[in-house]
Parts: sequence; C-alpha cells; structure tokens
Amino acid sequence: MQKSFPPYGYTPTEKGQFINPHSKLPPLFDGPTTLKNLVSRVNWPQSILLLSTPILGVYLGFNTELQNKTLYFSIIYYFISVFGITAGYHRYWAHNSFKASNITQIILSIAGSSAFQGSIYWWSRGHRAHHRWTDTDKDPYAVTRGLFFSHIGWMLINRPKYKLGYADTTDLKSNSLIRFQHKYYVPFAIFLSFAFPALFAGLGWKDWKGGFVFAGLCRLVCVHHATFCVNSLAHYLGETPYADNHSPKNSWITAIITGGEGYHNFHHEFPQDYRNAILWYQYDPTKWLIKCLSFIEQTYDLNTFSANEIEKGRIQMIEKKVKETKGNLKFGTPLHELPEYTMEEFESMVKVKHKQWILLDGIMYDVEGFDHPGGSKYIDTGIGKDMTKSFNGGVYSHSNAARNLLTSMRVGIIKDES
Amino acid sequence: MQKSFPPYGYTPTEKGQFINPHSKLPPLFDGPTTLKNLVSRVNWPQSILLLSTPILGVYLGFNTELQNKTLYFSIIYYFISVFGITAGYHRYWAHNSFKASNITQIILSIAGSSAFQGSIYWWSRGHRAHHRWTDTDKDPYAVTRGLFFSHIGWMLINRPKYKLGYADTTDLKSNSLIRFQHKYYVPFAIFLSFAFPALFAGLGWKDWKGGFVFAGLCRLVCVHHATFCVNSLAHYLGETPYADNHSPKNSWITAIITGGEGYHNFHHEFPQDYRNAILWYQYDPTKWLIKCLSFIEQTYDLNTFSANEIEKGRIQMIEKKVKETKGNLKFGTPLHELPEYTMEEFESMVKVKHKQWILLDGIMYDVEGFDHPGGSKYIDTGIGKDMTKSFNGGVYSHSNAARNLLTSMRVGIIKDES
Ligand code: HEM
Ligand code: HEM
Ligand SMILES: [Fe+2]
Ligand SMILES: [Fe+2]
Ligand SMILES: [Fe+2]
Ligand SMILES: [Fe+2]
Repeated sequence: MQKSFPPYGYTPTEKGQFINPHSKLPPLFDGPTTLKNLVSRVNWPQSILLLSTPILGVYLGFNTELQNKTLYFSIIYYFISVFGITAGYHRYWAHNSFKASNITQIILSIAGSSAFQGSIYWWSRGHRAHHRWTDTDKDPYAVTRGLFFSHIGWMLINRPKYKLGYADTTDLKSNSLIRFQHKYYVPFAIFLSFAFPALFAGLGWKDWKGGFVFAGLCRLVCVHHATFCVNSLAHYLGETPYADNHSPKNSWITAIITGGEGYHNFHHEFPQDYRNAILWYQYDPTKWLIKCLSFIEQTYDLNTFSANEIEKGRIQMIEKKVKETKGNLKFGTPLHELPEYTMEEFESMVKVKHKQWILLDGIMYDVEGFDHPGGSKYIDTGIGKDMTKSFNGGVYSHSNAARNLLTSMRVGIIKDES
Repeated sequence: MQKSFPPYGYTPTEKGQFINPHSKLPPLFDGPTTLKNLVSRVNWPQSILLLSTPILGVYLGFNTELQNKTLYFSIIYYFISVFGITAGYHRYWAHNSFKASNITQIILSIAGSSAFQGSIYWWSRGHRAHHRWTDTDKDPYAVTRGLFFSHIGWMLINRPKYKLGYADTTDLKSNSLIRFQHKYYVPFAIFLSFAFPALFAGLGWKDWKGGFVFAGLCRLVCVHHATFCVNSLAHYLGETPYADNHSPKNSWITAIITGGEGYHNFHHEFPQDYRNAILWYQYDPTKWLIKCLSFIEQTYDLNTFSANEIEKGRIQMIEKKVKETKGNLKFGTPLHELPEYTMEEFESMVKVKHKQWILLDGIMYDVEGFDHPGGSKYIDTGIGKDMTKSFNGGVYSHSNAARNLLTSMRVGIIKDES
C-alpha cells in the first residue's frame, strides 16, 4: 500500500496529524537486514565514493611530497568548495535567502559541484525535507537515528523513496541552470573534483600528482566531512537559544568547522535569513561573503528576519528556562496557605507560647535558630514586634538575598480585620 | 548640630528612613575647598605614603639591578600580602566568613600588615560600613563619588568622622590579637613593608638594595593598587547577575587583578559566604587557599549561602532583564483589544470585502502582503478558512518563530456565541 505513493509526493503521517520527533528510529537500515537484501539496501556508488576517498587520500597523502604551492592551492580550493555548498547550495538554492546575478549563480554552481555531494536539485530537495520534517522519519538525515546516520550513514544506504518527506521544489525544477547541472552532474563533479586540480597544479607548476592527491582527493575528504557536520554535529553539540523542541544547536565549534553553519538552532528557526550568526563576533564567513558580494551587486535582496521576531524567540526560551529552574527551587509556604492571626494572637504566641516570631510587612517569620549576619542582637530586639521599618532601611536596608531568605521562615499572615 | 554626633555612632539619614544611593556626591572633598582649609582636609600621612611609594618605586626600580632570586622573593611576598588582605582582613575579620586556628590568625595578621593599608580594626570597620551603606554618603569609598575617589581619593582626605556610616565592631574590639595589632600597627607595618624584605634579601643573598626596592617598595605599590581595585574596579566594570540596585559588579578581569575578589556582585549579596566565585572555573585563589587550609584544619566552619538562595537571586535578576527586554518588543494587538466577529462575519469579510484573512485557533489574521516562506500557495488556499490543523502539523508544524510572526497580523477574534 505505502509503496504506491508517488516518489516525492506528500506523505501523510502514520498517526494522525502530528509526527513525534522523539520516536525511536532505526540506526541505519529501515528494517531487519539479511545477506540477501543487503546488496539492494546499500547505495553502492555513494558508499564507494565516500569510503574509498578517505582511504586513498590518507594512503596517497603520506606517499606524496607536499609542495608549498600545491598546499596553498588546496587550501584555496577547499574554501571555494565549502562556500559553494554553504553560500550556494544551502543559503541560495535550498533557502532562497538572497538573490544573485547570473554570473554569481554560475560560479556558485561550479564551486558547489567541486564538493561532489550531489546536484543542486538533489541536495536542496533533501535539505528542504530536512527542515520541514526535522528529527522525524521523513527527515533524510534525522539525527534521532544517531550521529553516524546523520553524518554519513544516510548516504550509504537506499531508503525507500516514499519515506522522504514532501518538500516543494517547483522553483528548482523550472530553473534551467539547475536542470543543466543536474543532467551533467556526474561527469562534471568527477572533472572538478579530481581532473581539474591535477591539471591546474600540473600545468601551473608541474605538480600533477600533488594536485590530484592534495587539491583533489584530500581536499574533497575534508570538504565532505566539514559540510556533513552541519547535519550531524550541528544537531548534537551546543545550546538552544531560540527553540528546543527539535535537535538543532548553536555552537561556535561547529561554526568553525563548517564555514559558519554552526548557529544551526537560529538557522532552523529562521531558515530564510541569509545569516546563520547574527552577532558580529560570531564566526559566519559565509554571511560575510554574501554581504561582501552585495557591495559589488553580485548578490542582492538579502533576507533578514526582523530583530523584533528574533528577540521574541530568544526571550521566550529564556522565560522557559527560568520557569524550569524556578520549579526546582524552594520558595517557602505560599502566602495563601499561611494561617491567619490577629495582632493579639501574634503577640500572645510570643509572650505565652515563647515563639521567636517577628512581623514584617504583615507576614510573620519564625527566626528561631536563624544565625543573623552581624549578630543576633538585631533580631532579638525584634521578637514579637513589627520590624518592617527597621528591616527596610530604618536600621538597615536589606539585600534581595535577605528578602529571599525570609520566605523559608514564613509561619503566618496577619488577619485582615477590615 | 551634626558635629555633635558620636564619632562612630548611628547616624539617621537626612531624608526619612531611606538613603538614595544615586544622589550626586562631591568628587573628593565634602565642601568648597580654600587654600586655608586645604591643609586640614588633606590626610597628610596617608597621602605621603600613597604618593611617594609609586614615585620612589619607579625611580629606584629603574636604577637597581633586578636579581632572579629577588624577583622570585618579591612575587612570593606579593602574594602573601595580597592573601593577607583578601583572606585575612577581608573574608576573615571583616566578614567572619570562616573560622581559623590561632596560628593561622597570627600568620594572616602579619601577612595583612605587610600590605600597609591600616590595622585590621580600622580596615574592617570601614569595610563593614561600605557593605552596610554601599554607594551612599556613609560609604567610606562610595564609587558614586567617582572611580578616583573609590580607588585612592578617599584615603588622601580627612572626612568628618560623623559622615562614616555606623557598623557594629564589638567582635573586633573584644579580640586581643586585633587590639595588639592596632596598637603597634605603624612600626609593625613599616618594618614588614620595608625593613623585612631588605633584611631577608640582604642576609639571604646579599641583595640589600634589591630587597628594599623590589620586594619592599615595588611590591607594596602593586599590592596597594591591586587591592584598591576591589573598591574601584569591582564597583565599575562587569555584570550584575545577582542584584543591580547597587554598584557592585562581577568581572573576571577584576578577579585576576585582585586575587579573586572580582565576583563582587555576588559578594555584596552574600557577604558572609567565604567564596566570591561559586563556579569552579572562575578565578578565586583566595577561596582555594581557605579551602586548602581547611584540609589541614587551619580553617573551619566555612560559611556558604545555600545554593537555593543563590539561584533564587540569579533567577530573579534574569526575570527582571527579560521583563525589561519584553517591554521593548512589539507583540501585536493584545487579544482583548481585538474586535469580535462571528464565523459568518469573518466569511463575508473575505467574500464581500475581499479581505485576505485566515483563521487559526479562533483568531483572524490578515495575511495581505505577507511573503510566505516556501511560496504563497499555502496561504492562498487558506484565505477565508480555518487552517488551524494545516498550520499545526496537518500540512506543516510551524516553528515558534512562525507563531510569533502571526501576532503582528492579528485583526479579529471569533465571537463566543455560547
Ligand atoms: C528574619 C529577619 C531577618 C533576616 C532574614 C535578615 C537577614 C540579614 C542578612 C542576610 C544580612 C546580611 C546583609 C544582607 O544580605 O543584606 C543582614 C544584615 C543586617 N541586618 Fe538583618 N535580617 C533580618 C532582620 C533584621 C532586623 C529586624 C534588623 C534590625 C533590627 C536587622 C538588621 C541588620 C543589620 C544592621 C545588618 C547589617 C549587619 C552588618 O553588616 O553589620 N536585620 N540581615
Ligand atoms: C499567516 C499564517 C502563516 C504564517 C505566519 C506562516 C509562516 C511560516 C514560516 C515562518 C515558515 C518557515 C518555516 C518555519 O519557520 O517554521 C513557514 C513554512 C511553511 N508553511 Fe507557513 N505560515 C502560515 C500559514 C501557513 C498555512 C495556512 C500553511 C498550509 C496550508 C502553511 C504551510 C507551510 C509549509 C508547508 C511550510 C514549509 C515550507 C518549506 O519549507 O518548503 N503555512 N510558514
Ligand atoms: Fe539542520
Ligand atoms: Fe538549512
Ligand atoms: Fe564593595
Ligand atoms: Fe566585603
């Protein structure tokens, strides 16, 4: 029955309207895996690419001389690929968070292709599903299936297509650059990932092998794992200043690894914002790049969420945390549960029953055993009396801490006789 | 009239019970100063000590060879003097925040004397007044008179004694060690500050001059200004996590300068706590020293405020800041101010008046001009309808940010017809 859904169609959730992001999901395969179905369940091209490149990279890397020029070229090419993904694939195509000139689009699509992680169409489609169905079974890289799955596991396997949550991609499908890139993606990515760096270093300074190994292979492995961290680490490590109902987290560590995509809690709340970090001292070079390009009119209409809405979200989270913390604190007997006494009853409690009570602002406190800072003499003179004025500045204007201390000593409240 | 008050007696405040910590105070002298009264208003011994030591220290320091041994000795002696003030004078005698063995008391009194900043009695008496009358005219080093006054200015002048706020010192007066130290203070301090370091380095490794200049003079100047920062910088630079009605601040910068007394906002709220920093990673070596001494039973009964009370104070400050921030945010028309419409009226608003309204959870929103993320098609299908289910997960479970956005579009509320 389920299999008959259109591949990328809208899939209703199993149990009514809501999907539980905290339900237990299998760690890798969707069902019990036997030797027989293993072959069909592994995504062989992706697995071979993702497993062979690190092995080859490490092996060849240790057996190849690293020239200075090749090193610099590899680092520059690394950042080009990373920004191709973060500024291009992610913030531009998946989220439409700004507009770009044709030439910038072309450059971004080439830079992004050199990261060899799928066509713009494939990548954005999955990413939109990730945002819309975060942490559920319909999220292609749900961290709820484990860190390994969200980082790389999801690409090693074939998931039934109907499991992927629906996301609208009409804008992508109607774009001729995206269609073109999607069509010629594989040869294009192979050329950019391996052939181009070898050619560049070879023709440039005769380091064919170094170009292939360092600027090709090793760079690609680094780009892969750096950007994969947006799906794994960014949903695992850090704080939740804007919302905590889902897994995305804010962390400067993730930001440094991912070229600025580490403020992911913000990003999932405000995905149409071209920024991931909103404070100037937070590390978001992708944002800086987009902003700089806007000065030479290569990017424009940079989307930002209003500061009022962002601050609202932050404040509500703080309120939530304050409420939680307060729930764990002891505030003494609530006022409305305190027994009522008349002034005469209060006085006789002290005189007849020898209670150590004092009266402050209409509330009675039992100070027996309280070791008053600065000496018990202040308290002793107050037993059986209304010491409101002395407590509030007449003798000493008590701190907020002293006022808090009081709450645990409450024993009664003055009866309202009016 | 005022002059007839007993010198350290309780002085009632000028205007009723409360003293305004924010009233404008004169920056140095209490009244207009003429050439005639200048002589009597300057505290000559203190001024000469505090002004001559830095000048002499710098001059001689640049004209004396610094031997390694003398350098190490100066640094060690510096820390001994600082801890004499912070652990001894301040946390032990002024605040009674822990108990100490006789031998520890004697060592602390010697260490504290080597800092040449008054006897235990004089120092604690002023400090207690500082805590009880913080920021007012009765605070001996009120920062409200300026940073210079709180740092050193207050010691350069003679203030009328009746201006100093009352503080109880019966415990100090009845202590024979304190009485003894107070009586022989001046020769004692001169010996420890200048003669002892010269003797030590001279007899030890024949560096008489270096001992005097570096371990004596230069060390003293550093100790002075480091500890004076508790009265100036600690009331000027940093955050106010526990209370903001007075000037004390928390800052790790001040903590590093002052041997751990930089968490001064905490300290003024919880002065009987032997700690100034409560988190393990905050720099409070004075606390560490007191704690270490407790393992060999040289200190005991270390006072700490209950974590519950401390957390209460912190949470209340956060609540206060949240409230302030919320006051500056726009939350749209409050629900009770919204006009009421029946379901029929709502539908006719859309059909007849061509309003772009949708209904969510009983509230009407005008989405005209709203650029819906992911496309306007979702909104268009909802005009004139109740989209609660779609909005809450049927089609897409909206983020908290989306819910916040809604508030600014509110235009009506459904009439309760029951
Ligand atoms: C149960 C009631 C009381 C509690 C819980 C209480 C608590 C405190 C606390 C915690 C302090 C330390 C400084 C601060 O945090 O502000 C303090 C100081 C003080 N209290 Fe109270 N107090 C009480 C009643 C009184 C009364 C009735 C008087 C006056 C008759 C008084 C006079 C003082 C004075 C003069 C100080 C300053 C002591 C000094 O620093 O020398 N207190 N009190
Ligand atoms: C005035 C009412 C609405 C507001 C303010 C609003 C706001 C938003 C916002 C801010 C997002 C971005 C993601 C997020 O922050 O959660 C979003 C996404 C979305 N909204 Fe709405 N929305 C409204 C009404 C609706 C309705 C009625 C529907 C369904 C019929 C709908 C369907 C969606 C869908 C499917 C997405 C995901 C788009 C994607 O990522 O491809 N919205 N909406
Ligand atoms: Fe994510
Ligand atoms: Fe995203
Ligand atoms: Fe202070
Ligand atoms: Fe203090």
